[in-house]
Amino acid sequence: MALVRVGLAQLNPVVGDLDGNVSRVLDLLGEAERSGCDVVAFPELVVTGYPPEDLLLKPAFVRDNQEALAEIAAASRLCAAVIGFVDGSGSALYNAVAVCAEGKVHGVYHKRRLPNYAVFDEQRYFEPGIEPLSLFDIRGTLVGTTICEDAWWPGGPIHELAEGGAELIINVNASPYHRGKVAQREQMLAERAAESGCPIAYVNMVGGQDELVFDGASIVVDPSGRVVARGPQYQESLVVVDIDVPDGRPVVQTLPSIWVSDRVENDEISIRPPAAPMVPLLDDAAEVFGALVLGVHDYVFKNGFSDVVLGLSGGVDSSLVAAIAVEALGPSRVHGVLMPSRFSSEHSVTDAQQLAANLGIEYRIIPIEPAHQAFLEMLEPSFAGMAPDTTEENIQARVRGTILMALSNKFGWLVLTTSNKSESAVGYATLYGDSAGGFAVIKDVPKTLVYELCRYLNDSRGCEIIPGHVLTKPPSAELRPNQRDDQSLPPYELLDPILEQYVEQDKTAGELIEMGFDAELVRRITRLVDINEYKRRQFPPGVRITTKAFGKDRRLPITNRYRG
Amino acid sequence: MALVRVGLAQLNPVVGDLDGNVSRVLDLLGEAERSGCDVVAFPELVVTGYPPEDLLLKPAFVRDNQEALAEIAAASRLCAAVIGFVDGSGSALYNAVAVCAEGKVHGVYHKRRLPNYAVFDEQRYFEPGIEPLSLFDIRGTLVGTTICEDAWWPGGPIHELAEGGAELIINVNASPYHRGKVAQREQMLAERAAESGCPIAYVNMVGGQDELVFDGASIVVDPSGRVVARGPQYQESLVVVDIDVPDGRPVVQTLPSIWVSDRVENDEISIRPPAAPMVPLLDDAAEVFGALVLGVHDYVFKNGFSDVVLGLSGGVDSSLVAAIAVEALGPSRVHGVLMPSRFSSEHSVTDAQQLAANLGIEYRIIPIEPAHQAFLEMLEPSFAGMAPDTTEENIQARVRGTILMALSNKFGWLVLTTSNKSESAVGYATLYGDSAGGFAVIKDVPKTLVYELCRYLNDSRGCEIIPGHVLTKPPSAELRPNQRDDQSLPPYELLDPILEQYVEQDKTAGELIEMGFDAELVRRITRLVDINEYKRRQFPPGVRITTKAFGKDRRLPITNRYRG
Repeated sequence: MALVRVGLAQLNPVVGDLDGNVSRVLDLLGEAERSGCDVVAFPELVVTGYPPEDLLLKPAFVRDNQEALAEIAAASRLCAAVIGFVDGSGSALYNAVAVCAEGKVHGVYHKRRLPNYAVFDEQRYFEPGIEPLSLFDIRGTLVGTTICEDAWWPGGPIHELAEGGAELIINVNASPYHRGKVAQREQMLAERAAESGCPIAYVNMVGGQDELVFDGASIVVDPSGRVVARGPQYQESLVVVDIDVPDGRPVVQTLPSIWVSDRVENDEISIRPPAAPMVPLLDDAAEVFGALVLGVHDYVFKNGFSDVVLGLSGGVDSSLVAAIAVEALGPSRVHGVLMPSRFSSEHSVTDAQQLAANLGIEYRIIPIEPAHQAFLEMLEPSFAGMAPDTTEENIQARVRGTILMALSNKFGWLVLTTSNKSESAVGYATLYGDSAGGFAVIKDVPKTLVYELCRYLNDSRGCEIIPGHVLTKPPSAELRPNQRDDQSLPPYELLDPILEQYVEQDKTAGELIEMGFDAELVRRITRLVDINEYKRRQFPPGVRITTKAFGKDRRLPITNRYRG
Repeated sequence: MALVRVGLAQLNPVVGDLDGNVSRVLDLLGEAERSGCDVVAFPELVVTGYPPEDLLLKPAFVRDNQEALAEIAAASRLCAAVIGFVDGSGSALYNAVAVCAEGKVHGVYHKRRLPNYAVFDEQRYFEPGIEPLSLFDIRGTLVGTTICEDAWWPGGPIHELAEGGAELIINVNASPYHRGKVAQREQMLAERAAESGCPIAYVNMVGGQDELVFDGASIVVDPSGRVVARGPQYQESLVVVDIDVPDGRPVVQTLPSIWVSDRVENDEISIRPPAAPMVPLLDDAAEVFGALVLGVHDYVFKNGFSDVVLGLSGGVDSSLVAAIAVEALGPSRVHGVLMPSRFSSEHSVTDAQQLAANLGIEYRIIPIEPAHQAFLEMLEPSFAGMAPDTTEENIQARVRGTILMALSNKFGWLVLTTSNKSESAVGYATLYGDSAGGFAVIKDVPKTLVYELCRYLNDSRGCEIIPGHVLTKPPSAELRPNQRDDQSLPPYELLDPILEQYVEQDKTAGELIEMGFDAELVRRITRLVDINEYKRRQFPPGVRITTKAFGKDRRLPITNRYRG
């Protein structure tokens, strides 16, 4: 039984930042060398960042990415590096890894299974790999490389590589987070390892990229399917693991192998055997919170912002968003704005002030009455004789949006919006009002989970971050006297399961009624979801945490008469 | 030589409106019967509308579409109907046509080439057809059916069908318009016909669906590649053509054929030989104008609106949009709002009034000063000591956006926005200000083309619709004293070609400089395009008229550091 020292470099690249990504890869490659790794694997498309989307349609971008790979290859030494990049040219592009060592590229593998569902559009850009498989002989161990989706198919490339003599499988990934994904991945890899009889070293990207969060949690699975090492969630890390490679596995038909490097006496491996790291997985609420924090952090900094601003209404949504922002950026970079109206309760101000005090953030109070009144007067001739309705409510929300955007324009602060998924599903948010801003932190978080995350935060910090009253008072938009959410919407405990089935599970109204949900309610709610597609289309991006987020994950037509 | 009477039913379905689409198909099927057609072809996916997008992920929707097809089949009689629908179930769905006659489905063809580029995502939903090809024996003529993309490949399904004995090819389409597309299509079909030696009957959808316009212009091409019949652009129509089917073509290997209907003595065909219609193609400007008009018409009515509202600034963009709206909806459904500010010129009002008079639309004047002033005062404590900048300019645009949205909310009018492609490319529009609204009519029209369309309109109508002064005065946003577009941007004659290369042709800044464009200008402009992706992501949909529109056609990451 041979021992291979493998580095899993779960790194956070920036899409399009070829120079920055190369430099980060070289840092970790050096660290892997110094740690005595035989081989170090980087995430899928680490050179370009993931997903590069339509940058791939620019031939010059593809060429630049290949020059970046060449730079990494030239700098490689004894430790073999598995580097994700875009191979090919013209309309024949491949999502690829190169195995680099001793200053050159020894071989390239092309991803064979291209996901084209959910948030993935890989068939828009890439051709599937069809070249015969081969193995990489790294210091005497036969290593098979695969990329992300390749691993998700029984009988797929991992199986073929193992049957052809692979002793270790390296699978490189840009696998985006959603709730439950980590368990799903580990289960899948356990099955693949058991089927193939091979250990699998799985490296995942870390970082936020627009709506996606890559959560790290790289693992090594032994041939019995047991997880023997795991890196941290949401953090860059070089995870170093000594993997036992069993001898004498049966080989059906030996694949050709590409020589990469000789087995050399590696002093490091004898003198400093690294403990296989085994970072425990976060609980559900901590995991979701972690995804939101990393998503905000990376959106802000990768886009060149330093500070954020948000409206604080004293409600649960804005309170949670402020807390996430503080966790991501620190309190000094988070600016609150209280914008009471003639309809605002006193507690809307005092609760928001308490929150700001708890978080240690600065805030200002800008009452909206002057602009609110001005609009009502300007519109009076047009609206004469008509009863007030949501028009007047929306005006207030849009005055607030305009104030936040003005602060954003003047000070360069990114506006965080605070709508949750339940609201944007049914259109219970004002377009250009409370939906206005650069990043919609909790747009994929249903209202019931918003409460859960607040309670998690208070519990885990051992003190009241979100003021107790925020969590106990009935939700209200406070856009007319004595307004409460439950005047327009069913209780969120009833609403959220309907939305989950309709949006995430692709059920129709008819099927929901068959499942036992109230028919009239189902018809009303599903219709609201359908007719508010136009609004969501204009919402800012936000972190995806479910299996189907509004955004590129759910591509419904606006013009759509299907009511199912 | 046999004569086959073919109907090309270029119909305008609504996505998701299964009942409505069936009813419209049955109307035209009846008309085809009465016109003595042997066979009538409907557009691609006519049952569901195109593109149904993620409705296809709802299994119940797919089942409902199959019931709708069964209803059409049951109603079919002597005239064979080629009907686009979704076949299959679960994850094995097919973009298909069924050949129906005498009350039943005789056979089904599955599209073999699935476009997954530009605005197309067909590999997200469909599997490619792999069943062996067969022909349909319709009254003694062997007919091969293909779907859209199938026709774009030399040596593809059309070639195979022709080699297998097809005497006539029917190709059904949902082919979206862009400038130059009609000529491209006719050229391609001429090549395919000449290669295969078969006449091709090409039917295209008509109508607007969110960002896409399907332009009709169905044609018949004879075996020499000559266009022998053409239907109108942008209008529903049953195009009836008697097609000569030559005898004795060489057959490489005879494909199996499915019997559909006997040759019967058709009285109609002898008594009323229809003249093959040959509608001449519109000129470029008329063609673009037609696409914009149909796009607005269908977005408004298919989404249940009756009226539209827009801001009239006296500028060329809003003038053109108003004229398009009047052409699409009639003057009584178009409402103008003049919103002068402290910085507005007198001609901004008088030119807008003249436009409204020329178009015969109502308008109101709502000066924005009260809300503008209120915002400045509300923000004074925050902005104390800071110089005015674009912040204050954006406030004015957002006050206007709020007024338009209030009118929209109160009266149920759809807001049309007036930004052109040059502006949204470089971010020269205020998010939630002049970009606020439901439909961005000219979002894919570069500024130079805006002028061209205005001149076309005045010329073709033989009178001044767009006031002359609007076309001659220098463009200005009038958001500060004496502002002019050319203070911030290069002349549009210089800007538009750079944008065309960068956006539509996927060139990089480096390549543009190599092409001879001014280096500093290229760097500034391409950077503006890149950093304004976040804004465009929140813009409303609008009509695609180029080969690459902002929207689902161009999927650039927001977080993107590539500067090329």
